[in-house]
Amino acid sequence: MFSCTGYAAMAADVSLKPFAFERRDTGPEDVRIEILYCGVCHSDLHQARNEWQNTIYPCIPGHEIVGRVAEVGASVTRFRKGELVGVGCLVDSCRECASCKKGLEQYCEVGFVGTYNGEDRQGRGITFGGYSRAIVVDQGFVLKIPETLDPAAAAPLLCAGITTWSPLRHWKVGPGQRVGIVGLGGLGHMGVKFAKALGAEVVLFTTSQSKVADGIRLGAHEVVLSKDPAAMAKERGRFDFILDAVAADHDINAYLDLLKLDGTLVQVGAPETPLPVSVFSLLMKRRNFAGSLIGGIPETQEMLDFCGEHGITSDIEMIRMEEIEVAYERMLRSDVKYRFVIDMASMPAGA
Amino acid sequence: MFSCTGYAAMAADVSLKPFAFERRDTGPEDVRIEILYCGVCHSDLHQARNEWQNTIYPCIPGHEIVGRVAEVGASVTRFRKGELVGVGCLVDSCRECASCKKGLEQYCEVGFVGTYNGEDRQGRGITFGGYSRAIVVDQGFVLKIPETLDPAAAAPLLCAGITTWSPLRHWKVGPGQRVGIVGLGGLGHMGVKFAKALGAEVVLFTTSQSKVADGIRLGAHEVVLSKDPAAMAKERGRFDFILDAVAADHDINAYLDLLKLDGTLVQVGAPETPLPVSVFSLLMKRRNFAGSLIGGIPETQEMLDFCGEHGITSDIEMIRMEEIEVAYERMLRSDVKYRFVIDMASMPAGA
Repeated sequence: MFSCTGYAAMAADVSLKPFAFERRDTGPEDVRIEILYCGVCHSDLHQARNEWQNTIYPCIPGHEIVGRVAEVGASVTRFRKGELVGVGCLVDSCRECASCKKGLEQYCEVGFVGTYNGEDRQGRGITFGGYSRAIVVDQGFVLKIPETLDPAAAAPLLCAGITTWSPLRHWKVGPGQRVGIVGLGGLGHMGVKFAKALGAEVVLFTTSQSKVADGIRLGAHEVVLSKDPAAMAKERGRFDFILDAVAADHDINAYLDLLKLDGTLVQVGAPETPLPVSVFSLLMKRRNFAGSLIGGIPETQEMLDFCGEHGITSDIEMIRMEEIEVAYERMLRSDVKYRFVIDMASMPAGA
Repeated sequence: MFSCTGYAAMAADVSLKPFAFERRDTGPEDVRIEILYCGVCHSDLHQARNEWQNTIYPCIPGHEIVGRVAEVGASVTRFRKGELVGVGCLVDSCRECASCKKGLEQYCEVGFVGTYNGEDRQGRGITFGGYSRAIVVDQGFVLKIPETLDPAAAAPLLCAGITTWSPLRHWKVGPGQRVGIVGLGGLGHMGVKFAKALGAEVVLFTTSQSKVADGIRLGAHEVVLSKDPAAMAKERGRFDFILDAVAADHDINAYLDLLKLDGTLVQVGAPETPLPVSVFSLLMKRRNFAGSLIGGIPETQEMLDFCGEHGITSDIEMIRMEEIEVAYERMLRSDVKYRFVIDMASMPAGA
């Protein structure tokens, strides 16, 4: 075991603060990573504040991790010291079920081990995430980050990136298709970039006039203000695929109606309450309403390689570790373009 | 024009009664059919009673029509006098849009012409359905009925049959798959028969203990009482495909939870109010919730040919024309096994 420093929530109603803890030594299959940057995901806030009623304290959030390999275990062949690597939402899974064998560890039938608040499969306790100086992860769950990418801006690819990439690839989005992205936040802005890079005609739907110019800058061919009924009516039945990244309650039927025959709307945000779906809308054009959860390890590596080739990263605002609560509050107001990333060099010395 | 007799609703709140009207003469592309049998669909009742607020009176329902060709137009090559034929829910469509060109006339972008209460595309008024002695239909919307089938029991294939066949085929249901059918009524009992014949392992979900034995008789490998929470819990995550034929409001999430990774639930019944869908259930296994509407002409013929090869028809109760209101009332109580079919020979003489 070695001593490590992180920022932890000690309870639901108190601010995160410096926290000293121990990480395991580097086992034969392990990669020890010195963390350079960690993205700030909305899930971090949900978990820190126990909004899913399952948080185990102390809780160290963070699952958009980029760092450099500090040490590798005896059996590790794929990574070497000094290499730029990443860790996303998963650090383990059963590796034996049908989902795991397909490289879809996020759908592990036994349940994947989350990077934080997850129960370690070897009985080593609850996992601590990336708001920390270092992490030790099994090589099967470590990703290679192209050295050509800005490592800070690459961090959000590990969650926001793969969450949008996975459905775009699974439903085969590409040239000749008209694709809608609903919501311009951490997920949505990656959805726009990826759909554009995959060759689709991209239409961004946003409630904010202030985001129109940014939508175009990020790659959207058109931006539709979803509060404008006439603009929405013009889009009816025109979309092959829609990626809905809105986690708040919203009228899903307004978007289902935009799909063509056999079109699919995939929800990647998860509103807390069920969404009322008009079956009539589904019936009339054999439409599909689906969900998608982050992504598996092979497709995450595929995405990172694609990002390396196409120079794609997240638009970020860098923060210092002690600014995390301010960042959370701004995130709650959607006041971030488009992802906060913690510079881990700002972790208080000796904390 | 020629004189014809039918049974019509003259208003929403009165019983259907004998009605004399005129049909068009057999045009070059037309097939004139002497109707032998007409199935009774729940839509007939909705339309007769103006429950969709769009009924044009007088209204002659009926879109599960089987009869014999009485006359063919000069350009008709596919049909000859005396042949057993059928007409389903559609008698015309634009024939030029992408959907029509794919043989998916039910999704015609201009709108298909319903067999009743539809607006004729040549300006010949509102269409009258199969509760009548004869009908004249463009050859492109007439189906061949295998002579080996009982013509009365074949009638419900034209709506109840194709409505269940189309999604089972579109989503490629077959051997090695575990398939659920929700609800044992006119649609559901055809779903069980088809899914079985297509080689799937079929599980019927019903609220009625009284339907368990019938489910097995019709071909289900298992029957699950959907009101039994323990029985439902055992089925979680076990289904490749579920066909939901329940038109009443019901808990769709209870069935979505039964799907495996990448499984699809298709709704063919259309509840009036939106169904609340738990996005979490969709996300966790990349599940799909879709709708499907009747079927196109080529797939309807494919289904009828399949039924001929496999000896599949509907389970029916034959009624006389004047019993239609009693049949409607029994249908409202789900008291029919599993489709009423009107024997058109019972149409009052000279009515």
